[in-house]
Amino acid sequence: MEIPIQKKVLEANETQAQKNRKMFKEKNIFVLNVMSSPGSGKTETLYKTLKILMPKIKAGVIVGDICTRNDADRLEASGAQVVQINTDQFGGDCHLSADMIEKAARCFDLENLDLLIVENIGNLVCPAEFDIGESAKVVVLSVTEGEDKPLKYPLMFQVADAAILNKIDLLPYLDFNAKEAVDNMLKVHPTMPIFLLSAKTQEGFEPWIEWILDSVKR
Amino acid sequence: MEIPIQKKVLEANETQAQKNRKMFKEKNIFVLNVMSSPGSGKTETLYKTLKILMPKIKAGVIVGDICTRNDADRLEASGAQVVQINTDQFGGDCHLSADMIEKAARCFDLENLDLLIVENIGNLVCPAEFDIGESAKVVVLSVTEGEDKPLKYPLMFQVADAAILNKIDLLPYLDFNAKEAVDNMLKVHPTMPIFLLSAKTQEGFEPWIEWILDSVKR
Repeated sequence: MEIPIQKKVLEANETQAQKNRKMFKEKNIFVLNVMSSPGSGKTETLYKTLKILMPKIKAGVIVGDICTRNDADRLEASGAQVVQINTDQFGGDCHLSADMIEKAARCFDLENLDLLIVENIGNLVCPAEFDIGESAKVVVLSVTEGEDKPLKYPLMFQVADAAILNKIDLLPYLDFNAKEAVDNMLKVHPTMPIFLLSAKTQEGFEPWIEWILDSVKR
Repeated sequence: MEIPIQKKVLEANETQAQKNRKMFKEKNIFVLNVMSSPGSGKTETLYKTLKILMPKIKAGVIVGDICTRNDADRLEASGAQVVQINTDQFGGDCHLSADMIEKAARCFDLENLDLLIVENIGNLVCPAEFDIGESAKVVVLSVTEGEDKPLKYPLMFQVADAAILNKIDLLPYLDFNAKEAVDNMLKVHPTMPIFLLSAKTQEGFEPWIEWILDSVKR
């Protein structure tokens, strides 16, 4: 029973995702779906990124969490428009779906937006399966997780268009082999650009910011 | 459509979980379901725990991962019997279910087991919803994640019978307020025992080991 029904849910999601994609394209908005485990530093990375990009780039953020609007409050300090989705009203869903994005997008002044960042639910599994109509997906891994995460959660790294290896300021205090982590990401997705950076110190931010600016301009 | 079907899946799981629970009880095996985000240090914590408990306690481990048997290989070095479940054969499932546990349990010599540890898939959301017939649930949070994780993923902390705050050896290098994290866990689950420890240095292991030994004896 389970598999055909999952398929139906994914198909309905895909239909809405294509509608979202068409709408965002018409309005010339680059949509970035940012995914990771809980605690990888997505919010801090996005906050620092938006501080650099705004107001040159007109950016908005959709923040997904099961509960609380803590992340939305943090991101609003960057000056970006922020909309929080709490999935507890959808049964505590472990991912954002295309229909949630469609509803959240209505809260923005889309004519005045170049970049829409979606901070997905902290989960390295389920969000990888749900197209939300984004232009690109980014996965964030932090150096406090294991080097083998890309091999253990391959789908997330296969579908990502770029990866961030975050918290490199902590490398001196950890037994973490960053080269091995990067090699494992490339094993799963050989052509993926990977940005080693620290959201805390902003070390390594330049190539990441450049990648976003190039993507928005395209 | 989605909600009644999810309900059916959860009901079928619950029926199998009750069968598992009855079987484990008859054989006097304490079953511990260990859950967390990817990278919180579950495997290292369990490896060090088993090194202390074995061979006084006869222990087995079921390790859940989408892909690889890296964690199983690490845990086998403790001397425990280890069975790996890879959920990629079940469509990359983001949690272990009661029927997977029933199948994996058949691989053990159950008459010679006091303790069965289940290392669940790295995911702070979905595993909380799936009863596997365990005796107790433990959630592992690490100090490299945010203090507000218990508020953002409340179900996991509500259903847990105990919590570990791991990697306390890293506290000097982080802006992490351990008291705030503990307070947030207690906000969600006021009576939960919480063990602050480091799997790396084994600091704080004593109360955690005592808790397991008491639970196994009961």
